[in-house]
Amino acid sequence: MKKIPYKIYLDEKEIPKQWYNLRADMTQDHSPMLHPGTLKPVTVTDLEPIFCKELALQELNNTDRFIDIPGPIYDFYKMYRPSPLIRAYFLERELQTPAKIFYKFEGNNTSGSHKLNSAIAQAYYAKEQGIKMLTTETGAGQWGTALSMACGFFGLDLTVYMVKISAQQKPYRKAIMETYGAKVIASPSDTTQIGRRMLSDNPDSGGSLGTAISEAVEVAAGTPDTRYVLGSVLNMVLLHQSIIGLETKTALEKYDIYPDIVIGCAGGGSNFGGLISAYMHDKLHGKQAPYFIAVEPVSCPTLTRGKFCYDFCDTGKVTPLAKMYTLGSSFIPSGNHAGGLRYHGMSPILSQLYHDGYIDEARSVEQTGVFAAAKLFARVEGLLPAPESSHAIRAAIDEALKCKETGEEKTIVFGLSGTGYFDMGAYIMYNSGSMTDNLPSDEELGKGFSGIPVL
Amino acid sequence: MKKIPYKIYLDEKEIPKQWYNLRADMTQDHSPMLHPGTLKPVTVTDLEPIFCKELALQELNNTDRFIDIPGPIYDFYKMYRPSPLIRAYFLERELQTPAKIFYKFEGNNTSGSHKLNSAIAQAYYAKEQGIKMLTTETGAGQWGTALSMACGFFGLDLTVYMVKISAQQKPYRKAIMETYGAKVIASPSDTTQIGRRMLSDNPDSGGSLGTAISEAVEVAAGTPDTRYVLGSVLNMVLLHQSIIGLETKTALEKYDIYPDIVIGCAGGGSNFGGLISAYMHDKLHGKQAPYFIAVEPVSCPTLTRGKFCYDFCDTGKVTPLAKMYTLGSSFIPSGNHAGGLRYHGMSPILSQLYHDGYIDEARSVEQTGVFAAAKLFARVEGLLPAPESSHAIRAAIDEALKCKETGEEKTIVFGLSGTGYFDMGAYIMYNSGSMTDNLPSDEELGKGFSGIPVL
Repeated sequence: MKKIPYKIYLDEKEIPKQWYNLRADMTQDHSPMLHPGTLKPVTVTDLEPIFCKELALQELNNTDRFIDIPGPIYDFYKMYRPSPLIRAYFLERELQTPAKIFYKFEGNNTSGSHKLNSAIAQAYYAKEQGIKMLTTETGAGQWGTALSMACGFFGLDLTVYMVKISAQQKPYRKAIMETYGAKVIASPSDTTQIGRRMLSDNPDSGGSLGTAISEAVEVAAGTPDTRYVLGSVLNMVLLHQSIIGLETKTALEKYDIYPDIVIGCAGGGSNFGGLISAYMHDKLHGKQAPYFIAVEPVSCPTLTRGKFCYDFCDTGKVTPLAKMYTLGSSFIPSGNHAGGLRYHGMSPILSQLYHDGYIDEARSVEQTGVFAAAKLFARVEGLLPAPESSHAIRAAIDEALKCKETGEEKTIVFGLSGTGYFDMGAYIMYNSGSMTDNLPSDEELGKGFSGIPVL
Repeated sequence: MKKIPYKIYLDEKEIPKQWYNLRADMTQDHSPMLHPGTLKPVTVTDLEPIFCKELALQELNNTDRFIDIPGPIYDFYKMYRPSPLIRAYFLERELQTPAKIFYKFEGNNTSGSHKLNSAIAQAYYAKEQGIKMLTTETGAGQWGTALSMACGFFGLDLTVYMVKISAQQKPYRKAIMETYGAKVIASPSDTTQIGRRMLSDNPDSGGSLGTAISEAVEVAAGTPDTRYVLGSVLNMVLLHQSIIGLETKTALEKYDIYPDIVIGCAGGGSNFGGLISAYMHDKLHGKQAPYFIAVEPVSCPTLTRGKFCYDFCDTGKVTPLAKMYTLGSSFIPSGNHAGGLRYHGMSPILSQLYHDGYIDEARSVEQTGVFAAAKLFARVEGLLPAPESSHAIRAAIDEALKCKETGEEKTIVFGLSGTGYFDMGAYIMYNSGSMTDNLPSDEELGKGFSGIPVL
């Protein structure tokens, strides 16, 4: 057997030339998104005022298995991809586990995460269509940063609604987006009807992704030559992020390795959906497949404690309804620090796959345990992880420790979706011992569903 | 000719197995360091109370051309090396230059810079010798972060004296060092004699690298099982950093490319000395060699306006004297933001090479021009550079624009020594238009030499 290096890098020409649309292979397609006014399945025509046409087509495409990556996107990918697949030799040694641990590291770019994979694609299609400005929301800030970079690259204007609590905790995230030319507004804001309503209901609101989405959509819908883009949840985003899983599988195949377990953190699903894509392909085709674990925070337990039903994608109830695991679009999670995992819903594709048993397990973990794992990982592997990604590290360590008990030499692959360089406020809190876990009560969770039509 | 990819990655097994000690090849060795008490050349015995023995030996070694990299250091290198050599295709397109621009990117690790190359080596030798604690100083914070990572990895205690103005501007740098287990003290501090003296002379001092060095050395000298380590200036540091240049040359040789110009920013010389190492080898052997440009800020113009003479390496005058280009060890630069380039002196090796004409040019550049280059680079190349590294970007862009005028297809290689993720305060200042250039007067520069023996 070939010696496995610390980092497996593919050649530039091995970057996938097509994205994989796993929806085309699903046994049971997810239920269609519904127009919020008519409650009928949305059409490309419905979506076009909000999304670029090409992206609207991708969103509704459940037939084309592979979609070509346009040249300019591919060239941009070459600046920071292929991303390394890293063998966690030092983590294995530290844990004294017989397990082999690999992680796909998506943080080697200035956005600090995998978000750039979809940001550059969405900005490209907007540019091609002659759009002048994009609007979006950002929670932790990775998506906003990624889209700022993409818009800066293609010369598009960008307005980012940033969840207020994140904007306060991460002033440097705001600064980096501004450095790339974006306009950043803390949400809820007084620049939109939705924002003003939220502020009048709750002037001290720290905001939520759901509210920020509503604001960004409202502005896009009301401004000429402007479209809205979203960094997670949507089918098109999972499509673009499939590149993570495709690269991962190609890299491991060079060493004849097929993983036993694949682990990713899941907020809206962009990272997890991308990571599992190529292996889910196998499972959907009835072949051998890894055991898939989606990890989420106990404070925002969408898959583990949410309902599988139709819900709005935003708090303001202006978006289409999607059938997904959801805590209810009125749910506002407590101010925990994994900003990227604070979304009330989950990708409809992943929701359906989980519902149908294709995703083997969803697991919720506590924040203090997540940061303990993050610090251990940082010390032995030399990379300071994002709080979001550290949810996957926590689960990977737990699985590796199980192997230590049983003696099994399982191969564990997890997604290190990003770095924590802009999350030092959370690390400071953890280091000082003042971080707590936020386990919501059933009553608190129930509040998320107020005013939602039962479908 | 083979198509040049965006990123040239060497295989893991192509990481150099030896460092290159260019001092062994110098026509004229640099003048020896002098003991501050006796003014006689220092011996290993003089250095041993401050440095680990193996590092003291490396410091004085001017005969061994290549020195083996010990296994545990090599294994650690494999976690983040080889670093990529990147073809700046998009920057070339933006500038419409016929020049070919490459940059060696050393920021793909959590310390965010090349500093880790020497930090892990110095921590390893300390661990091997049974040392329990290290002390050091840090300016911009890259070195302190790198050493925190290295000490965390090997289980050593670490106290970092951080230049006060940097500590204030970069609270998250402090946090990341603490996350890796380091104790961080703003310098000047009341924890040392030197610090208390500096504070009594100037209570509002923002500090300097020179003062922070004095404090760290004082603590190391007075604490059992403790040694001092330094991230630049020293011969041993240039030795460890030679890996940058060795990798660069190997990568370009794969494509039969020999650069015309090599550009690096120079503070104490660790990055520049490392970057040029393999090509300087050629020049020292009378072969074809690139045109070498060292770039520094106008606010701390060591090579361009300093004197070549003996001086202390620190403000407190407790270290040995080195013959080097210096602004005088009492020089405290104005609060410009490239914290890593605020040192009053320059590596004795590089000083001698510059004096003897082996380094072709030293160039000082203004901060606002540096940030303009940084923002342009960030937008088109997708990486937000450190302010220090952006000095090299400025010069590289200027050289590429000259090629545009003349039509010359020169190959330009520059060192992108680090990322700017912890430098957003400086970017905020630049974005707001409130950044100014600090061109010191001759009188201000002259103050640096008060109280220094003329040798």
